[in-house]
Parts: sequence; structure tokens; C-alpha cells
Amino acid sequence: MAKAQGCFYCEEHHEKRDSIMYLVGKMTTGTLYLFRDQSHKGRCVLALDDHKKEIFELTDAQRAGIIGDVSRVAEAIKTLWGCNKINIGSFGDTNPHLHFHIVPKYEGGLDFGGGFTITRADGDQTILKQEEYDEMIAALKKELGL
Amino acid sequence: MAKAQGCFYCEEHHEKRDSIMYLVGKMTTGTLYLFRDQSHKGRCVLALDDHKKEIFELTDAQRAGIIGDVSRVAEAIKTLWGCNKINIGSFGDTNPHLHFHIVPKYEGGLDFGGGFTITRADGDQTILKQEEYDEMIAALKKELGL
Repeated sequence: MAKAQGCFYCEEHHEKRDSIMYLVGKMTTGTLYLFRDQSHKGRCVLALDDHKKEIFELTDAQRAGIIGDVSRVAEAIKTLWGCNKINIGSFGDTNPHLHFHIVPKYEGGLDFGGGFTITRADGDQTILKQEEYDEMIAALKKELGL
Repeated sequence: MAKAQGCFYCEEHHEKRDSIMYLVGKMTTGTLYLFRDQSHKGRCVLALDDHKKEIFELTDAQRAGIIGDVSRVAEAIKTLWGCNKINIGSFGDTNPHLHFHIVPKYEGGLDFGGGFTITRADGDQTILKQEEYDEMIAALKKELGL
């Protein structure tokens, strides 16, 4: 499995990564993170464990694995926090290690009916207390058996 | 396979759909459309053939099929138009029939380094001549064997 030096997702304990998302655990083909900006309650990121840029560079098994992982996370978020629609987005133009934003939307809530902002301005972010992140991470781990 | 009355993707020859995207062809698990707004050259939409809302409602075979279709389309777009990164997005808060926007990004071009707008304002859209759409559809069909 390829790892790339200087890559946000390949380098363990990367300071920048920890300022944006918190590790939840390893899944089948990817690693799950809870997004620090919880403007959309339950928002997560799932990153492929292999350093690949485009979906068509994956093996068939990796593709089935990563979409299976995305699906399990989406279902866990809905079960835990009761959203009305899950959005899924993979961008990474300047951070080309394949990853998916998994963003729950709530009727009447932020961005419902539209897309979502990859990185909201600092002042617009919803930052929780550390124990609230810890509780959410524990709930995801339990729900997903991680 | 479920079909829903009044659904944008389920109803054939739906006027609204034809004003937003043009049919390219049927794939394994989804149907491919070329997006009418070609602000991102090659932008497509792939819709699941079954009327399901969330990724976790699909069978394992449907999930593997739809991500395989997305992957083949992404690779075809890169081959045909030489983009630098493919973005993939599934939103549909108010149009809950699972579909993926497949959006090529070009270094130095529109939105590179960020996300993309689901529906750009009319005045900001890049609308081609009908023969240009026809050429792009023919190229996609040939590349994908549709």
C-alpha cells in the first residue's frame, strides 16, 4: 500500500490533520475521522488507506470496500443523529489522496437543499468541547464496531 | 426496480431533466447524462436506475456497480478532456433519487482547489451549441462502449 511523504492523510499524527478532524478508527479500506467543524452534526471524513488520487486508480476490491465503508458510516450517522439526507463529496484538487466528506443534512438546517462548503470560515465553524467530540467518537465506534 | 412518480430521474423524457442534462446511455447500475452547463468541460451526472435515496439502501451489488460506473465515467472524462482532478458529489436533499455529479477540474480553471456549485446561476453557465453536446455525447459513448 502506497504512502506519500508530506501527504496530509499518509503521515500519522500530522498536526494540520488533527486541527481539522479527529481519528475515529480503521475500517475495511479506509480510515474514519470526525470533522472538527460540526456545523453539520455528525459530519465525517473517510480517507482511503492507500495513497491514490482518482477513483479509477483503485482495484475493484478497493472501490467496493471504500463505498461499503462510506455506506456504513452514512447509516451510522443517520442512526445516531437522525439526519434527513446524507451528502457525499470527494474533491481534493490540491490534496490528492482520495477521501470522502460524509455530510448529514437536516431539514430546516444549514445548507439543506444545496451543497456544503468544504472548509467554512473560522468564525462560521461549530467547535465543540473536547468531551463532546470524545462522546461522538465513542458513539461512532460503538455503532460501527470499531 | 422501484420507480417513483414525479421523480426527476424516474420519469422518462421529463422536460425539466432535459433542460439540465442530456442522456448519454445506460451503464451497469446507473444512467449517464452529460450536464448541460459545461462550465467544467466534461461534467456529467450518473443516476442510479433504482429509486433509492441513500447509499446504504442499495444492495452490495448495486453499490459496487454504481461506484464502478462512476469510476469508468471519471476515467473516460480524463481520457477525453485531460482534466487534472475529478470531483464526485452526491447531494439531492430535495431530489432524493441517488445520483452523482462527476465534475472534472482543470489547474488554473474554474473552482480549482475548491468544490463546485451544484447549479450555477443562468448567466454564469456555459451553454454549448447542440452539435457540440452531440459530439461530446458521441465521444463518451465510444469511450465507454455504450
